[in-house]
Amino acid sequence: MRFKDIISINDITKEEIDFILDYSEQFDNSNRNEILNGKVMASIFFEPSTRTRFSFDSAMKQLGGKVLSFSEPDFTSLTKGETLWDSIKMVERYADVIIIRHKLEGAARLASEAANIPVINAGDGTNQHPTQTLLDLYTIKKSFGKIDGLNIGLVGDLKLGRTVHSLASALALYGCNLFFIKVGNLEMPRYVLEILDERNAKYEKHDFLDIKEIIPKLDVLYMTRVQRERFPDTPDGSYDYEKIKSIYVLNKSLLNNAKDSLKIMHPLPRVFEIPKEIDNTKYALYFDQASNGVVVRKALLDLVLRKNE
Amino acid sequence: MRFKDIISINDITKEEIDFILDYSEQFDNSNRNEILNGKVMASIFFEPSTRTRFSFDSAMKQLGGKVLSFSEPDFTSLTKGETLWDSIKMVERYADVIIIRHKLEGAARLASEAANIPVINAGDGTNQHPTQTLLDLYTIKKSFGKIDGLNIGLVGDLKLGRTVHSLASALALYGCNLFFIKVGNLEMPRYVLEILDERNAKYEKHDFLDIKEIIPKLDVLYMTRVQRERFPDTPDGSYDYEKIKSIYVLNKSLLNNAKDSLKIMHPLPRVFEIPKEIDNTKYALYFDQASNGVVVRKALLDLVLRKNE
Amino acid sequence: MRFKDIISINDITKEEIDFILDYSEQFDNSNRNEILNGKVMASIFFEPSTRTRFSFDSAMKQLGGKVLSFSEPDFTSLTKGETLWDSIKMVERYADVIIIRHKLEGAARLASEAANIPVINAGDGTNQHPTQTLLDLYTIKKSFGKIDGLNIGLVGDLKLGRTVHSLASALALYGCNLFFIKVGNLEMPRYVLEILDERNAKYEKHDFLDIKEIIPKLDVLYMTRVQRERFPDTPDGSYDYEKIKSIYVLNKSLLNNAKDSLKIMHPLPRVFEIPKEIDNTKYALYFDQASNGVVVRKALLDLVLRKNE
Repeated sequence: MRFKDIISINDITKEEIDFILDYSEQFDNSNRNEILNGKVMASIFFEPSTRTRFSFDSAMKQLGGKVLSFSEPDFTSLTKGETLWDSIKMVERYADVIIIRHKLEGAARLASEAANIPVINAGDGTNQHPTQTLLDLYTIKKSFGKIDGLNIGLVGDLKLGRTVHSLASALALYGCNLFFIKVGNLEMPRYVLEILDERNAKYEKHDFLDIKEIIPKLDVLYMTRVQRERFPDTPDGSYDYEKIKSIYVLNKSLLNNAKDSLKIMHPLPRVFEIPKEIDNTKYALYFDQASNGVVVRKALLDLVLRKNE
Repeated sequence: MRFKDIISINDITKEEIDFILDYSEQFDNSNRNEILNGKVMASIFFEPSTRTRFSFDSAMKQLGGKVLSFSEPDFTSLTKGETLWDSIKMVERYADVIIIRHKLEGAARLASEAANIPVINAGDGTNQHPTQTLLDLYTIKKSFGKIDGLNIGLVGDLKLGRTVHSLASALALYGCNLFFIKVGNLEMPRYVLEILDERNAKYEKHDFLDIKEIIPKLDVLYMTRVQRERFPDTPDGSYDYEKIKSIYVLNKSLLNNAKDSLKIMHPLPRVFEIPKEIDNTKYALYFDQASNGVVVRKALLDLVLRKNE
Repeated sequence: MRFKDIISINDITKEEIDFILDYSEQFDNSNRNEILNGKVMASIFFEPSTRTRFSFDSAMKQLGGKVLSFSEPDFTSLTKGETLWDSIKMVERYADVIIIRHKLEGAARLASEAANIPVINAGDGTNQHPTQTLLDLYTIKKSFGKIDGLNIGLVGDLKLGRTVHSLASALALYGCNLFFIKVGNLEMPRYVLEILDERNAKYEKHDFLDIKEIIPKLDVLYMTRVQRERFPDTPDGSYDYEKIKSIYVLNKSLLNNAKDSLKIMHPLPRVFEIPKEIDNTKYALYFDQASNGVVVRKALLDLVLRKNE
């Protein structure tokens, strides 16, 4: 299969996802050959994201490639009034692949139209972050040998969390049983449910207050962070950040009746929702999940750079 | 020929320029060998310049070299009161070549005196930017097979634009016919004309309002950006930025009587002076010009680093 | 010998120091082989330090390794509230060794406990900066063929200067005769003297005003900078920064009766305490000292990365 750009998980068919997950396996060891020697990756982050950037950088460098790295506020102030289109037309003369993160939805799409070289979306606003979804799927498949039919709980901020929206859509392709476990009033939005309904996804809606009853059913417990900066003031007495902070904690005792094979995932950073005592349990998979980000990004870089030659 | 530093285009003879342009040709393909393996370039930008920095970085990395990259405000605040001289004495212990951009004229010259390793000027204030001039000359020679005797129009801000000053001086060495096409009152300054007169350069002075009559004569139309930040307020009713913005646009219809072989260049970024509709015409050379920056900088890095060993 | 982390000079025995100094010699030439090919170093600077960072970067890159570089304010703002522990748990998934500088004492120690990969302390607050001490020792040994029994003057800010505290402790292991030559009231603190007394160190206390009489006895004159930012206001008429600035200058005439073999060292940057006229004398060793920083850091990176495999 051939890939030029990786912009949205919705552009990629189930067959293509399976191909990427299979292709990634060969990068899942410490073999760090020099297959991308002489290749240059331009990393353009209009919005900060330490770990996504670190992960792409590490993937490219471990494969022998070089990185041109530009971050805000450098980039915008320096492009001196030119359009994103022109900035990309410039960058494509200096690099072989562009990694872009931008707060505006559609920025990565525009970049892929401007560039003759491959563009990979490293997150655009609240919309798409396809490589996060691919590494989540890879992590699940690596743990269970399959994705199909698993019981997967998505927990925390289901309203604003880009990660769970994309992941839920993708899991629907695999016939998973989804459990949406919201905190406060941070429910899965209407438009995501509509996509899921189109795909005949099986899902149930719950509240974190009832998580003890749901955990025994789950294969995967996918926790997410509640972002203080996105949390509205609520003078009317409804849920607010401090209240959520006191409720939304996965205490070890909640896992008493969990399956032995339960895996806890989290896109990180965590704040308070997973206590450190969970780290050393057999359930904790979140740091391995971070490692898998490098694995999948190596595969994607290789696919768009080398396989297309 | 041997080169240690590249500080000013005026330090370099016509024979040396020809040598550099010829030497650059071998880097003008996708061959990216590892000839600068183990070499380290220190990139010190006291003033931001995305594309010059990107271009040098890309050149060094494609040739297998490594880059130590420091930019403002990091560098100044960190050198903790030491002089530029001492900063350079430090950096030369960590690197094999220094690329420096500084807003003060003469900073690159001072750096070359402090350092025992080669120093390349990546722009100092409104004075010199020699690698830009070399890539412009390379672009012209690559398109026409020669530079001598061509008709070249320099358009836009001729008063404050460092690029056109250096380029005009260099083109005078090749007996080009120069057409200075100013916008508003942004005329070629006296001191540049004096250099040109010394070199017996042939030049005419025009206004952008008359560009339609001049274009048919030209082989190269070299456009430049009018920089809002350098534009003075003009309460007396003379030209101001907004007025220039409405006048200074190279509409496609202006090219109706152009030579088939006309090439439009621009050091980029453009703002409004070249509409996007020009991009897909046979005349547009500005994005290729950006690529040539990497080519010429590869040649220069190789010349100062490897040929001198 | 095997090393995982380099956190404090006090963790390292005299035998281990000797081993490191001997091991470093092989890196003290321009041989830049690719022995760390495919290895990735994460450079995390919570506090700025141009030259330490440049030095580690250069060492890693010259050995063929790659660098993931994150500096403030990027890093903190991006880790979005997570703890240093979690940040390190993340970074260890992307890199093979972590270089950390943090203003809090103990941060590097905490990082080494969190990480399964080696951690090297690049300075924590006013506490430890072990690689600086090692490069100072290496520089002395390289110049004199030995460290034992030399007469070494430590000059300047003995109160707040981390460098002289660690160096004095280490020199005590070699039976050096130490001369503490303070400026103003910036004396060697009690707790350092206690460590020295435990080690039966030989030391004398002097004031910079008497330096002319002491210089003839010395093999090494180790100057340090008085940091304006750490200097308290002194409304009571005691020493202040401006007064020190006028007194604390190593004029060339002070060296009239120095030994021929005297070497002047300085961790750099200097501000005013060493006039430029000293640079070209046979005494000046401070720029070579900076070069030795790259040598010793290459040795340390190789020791923790490759020798442990």
